[in-house]
Amino acid sequence: MPEINAVRRFHLQAVLAAGDADAALITSLVNVRYLTGLASSNAALLVPAEGDAVLATDSRYALAAERDCPDLELLISRTVDSALAELASKRGLRRLAFEAHEMTVERCDALTAAGDLEPRPLGRVVEDLRMTKDDTEIALLARACAITGAAFDEVVPRIAAGMTERQLAVLIERAMVDAGAEKPAFDTIVASGPNGAIPHHSPAGRAFAPGDMITVDCGALYGGYHADMTRTVVLGTPAGWQRDLYALVAAAQQAGIATAGPGVAVADVDAAARDVIGEAGYGEAFSHGLGHGVGLEIHEAPIVGHGRPGRLADRVSITVEPGVYLPGKGGIRIEDTLVVRSGAPAAARGLLTTTTTATPRELLVL
Amino acid sequence: MPEINAVRRFHLQAVLAAGDADAALITSLVNVRYLTGLASSNAALLVPAEGDAVLATDSRYALAAERDCPDLELLISRTVDSALAELASKRGLRRLAFEAHEMTVERCDALTAAGDLEPRPLGRVVEDLRMTKDDTEIALLARACAITGAAFDEVVPRIAAGMTERQLAVLIERAMVDAGAEKPAFDTIVASGPNGAIPHHSPAGRAFAPGDMITVDCGALYGGYHADMTRTVVLGTPAGWQRDLYALVAAAQQAGIATAGPGVAVADVDAAARDVIGEAGYGEAFSHGLGHGVGLEIHEAPIVGHGRPGRLADRVSITVEPGVYLPGKGGIRIEDTLVVRSGAPAAARGLLTTTTTATPRELLVL
Repeated sequence: MPEINAVRRFHLQAVLAAGDADAALITSLVNVRYLTGLASSNAALLVPAEGDAVLATDSRYALAAERDCPDLELLISRTVDSALAELASKRGLRRLAFEAHEMTVERCDALTAAGDLEPRPLGRVVEDLRMTKDDTEIALLARACAITGAAFDEVVPRIAAGMTERQLAVLIERAMVDAGAEKPAFDTIVASGPNGAIPHHSPAGRAFAPGDMITVDCGALYGGYHADMTRTVVLGTPAGWQRDLYALVAAAQQAGIATAGPGVAVADVDAAARDVIGEAGYGEAFSHGLGHGVGLEIHEAPIVGHGRPGRLADRVSITVEPGVYLPGKGGIRIEDTLVVRSGAPAAARGLLTTTTTATPRELLVL
Repeated sequence: MPEINAVRRFHLQAVLAAGDADAALITSLVNVRYLTGLASSNAALLVPAEGDAVLATDSRYALAAERDCPDLELLISRTVDSALAELASKRGLRRLAFEAHEMTVERCDALTAAGDLEPRPLGRVVEDLRMTKDDTEIALLARACAITGAAFDEVVPRIAAGMTERQLAVLIERAMVDAGAEKPAFDTIVASGPNGAIPHHSPAGRAFAPGDMITVDCGALYGGYHADMTRTVVLGTPAGWQRDLYALVAAAQQAGIATAGPGVAVADVDAAARDVIGEAGYGEAFSHGLGHGVGLEIHEAPIVGHGRPGRLADRVSITVEPGVYLPGKGGIRIEDTLVVRSGAPAAARGLLTTTTTATPRELLVL
């Protein structure tokens, strides 16, 4: 879809035109993909404030670049950033904005030593543009999330005492690939019993036992877009504290989702969920932010957390994932990916991850 | 194994003591893992030229750090690099060497703005130390390679006309995980028929047909170590040119392996294989370097290529992977991972990837 990528580059050029740079040198591979459509492990893009952009990549990706980016001038080189810096210098684009949050000190020194450029930080301009998803992106994200939910629903009935965390993680990852995922969007987390108290637990040899809560955090990669979803289920009759805690986290998640609308401060979305947990006396046990942007990266802007700056806009995709972690006892996290949309009732605001077995609102007893 | 990590830090301290820095700030996550044993997505390490090192990571990894690094002072912080820079300043370690090839301009600016530090580039000191593998590393690498070979041997008999590249890639990745891999060390390449001419082809929906050569480039991740192996097989009776070209690439690989010994220049190892292909008139069709170091990263030092600097040492692990790519026709690549060892006949020099179905020397006809 070269047209969409051209629109995205146009937005970047509008930012450049309003600033003091002649051109931007984009070296973040994710940002290059966003602005060109090319997925490459070695690429960079020169975007002048006015005129056409130049894409550099090495010979391994030449065919793909010709196919996917027919509207772009191509430069085939192994050292993509210095090749483009040289070109910028040649074309008189001396005031070159670069991605200081991404470029290494070594590469930056090499660029500035080479020519008569006046480098200046671009800031996270492309990351900010990427926050607002266009229709193409929302469709890919929705597909990634649908695959994730379907895979989870397929595997859940097979969870039983004696199965290990690792076995369940492998089952879910395979179900996602069978349902069309390129691969898992990240290493699947399966945390059972006391391990549930570790938010980023690596699934290991622990076998499920009756009474365990089991937290599964998984997502599919599709068309470059990442899904992110967490469900917590219980094996055998749940104890009273497990039911109560689940209801609490579910209520916190609903409060967060209900608050997440265009124009709302991300800190207020976090607070809406955090207050529910805090008022119940578990504030300390909710040890991370409420969520994060998700798209071409599994974690991207905005960060939805306590005291974080910024407001949501229409078409921003985020996760809402409150959790309560009790060391030695276990933990519960419930997470969905959604697209903030205007003009829809809060409950229907673009929830992309849906499951029919374990739903966010009700503790599934296996 | 805290003792081994302490030995590795000692080697770094010897380099620091010989230079002009008071301490090194290690921010490459792979290097932090190498020097401490901690696998974390957010960690940094302060290594003074004399005295004990300080490991910083965030609360998600606190338990793992306490368990895996009992010999290290721990600092729990979300902003690991600036926390350690502050500590260095407090302890009078002003001349701070940092990894300029890894640290971003933005992070470096923040560090230097914060205190009275005199930052200076450390260079790739830890990467250079990592080239020489200790016994622990060789054992992990050997296991990763054994898993890879076993998975390949298990899947090969199932290759048949009509199977797609993508299906074969998924089969092999699952066989590796079933054989004990944490996950694939990289996205498996399966390139069939004309796609074989693309060295980094992404497996897609193309179905195998009689007469196809099929190149499979795969590897298992085990204990953080990456295996890397490529085999090319043929479906149905091979054409004469396929047999001839396979024999050529196999001879080039044997020449490279036979040359790869301690003290030998990497450029000479590349040349040994390249000359075989060049003399047969296919020099242009061997479009990449002969190999690369492999260990905690799938691509690490040394680069074994034409005109590359440096010599091999005892216990350096590399790949040897010549290839010939004929656009529109197909390609052949044969790759093994080996550990360069002294005191062994060339043929027995620590070849880690072995297969019993398709061997490097002989074209397997399916």
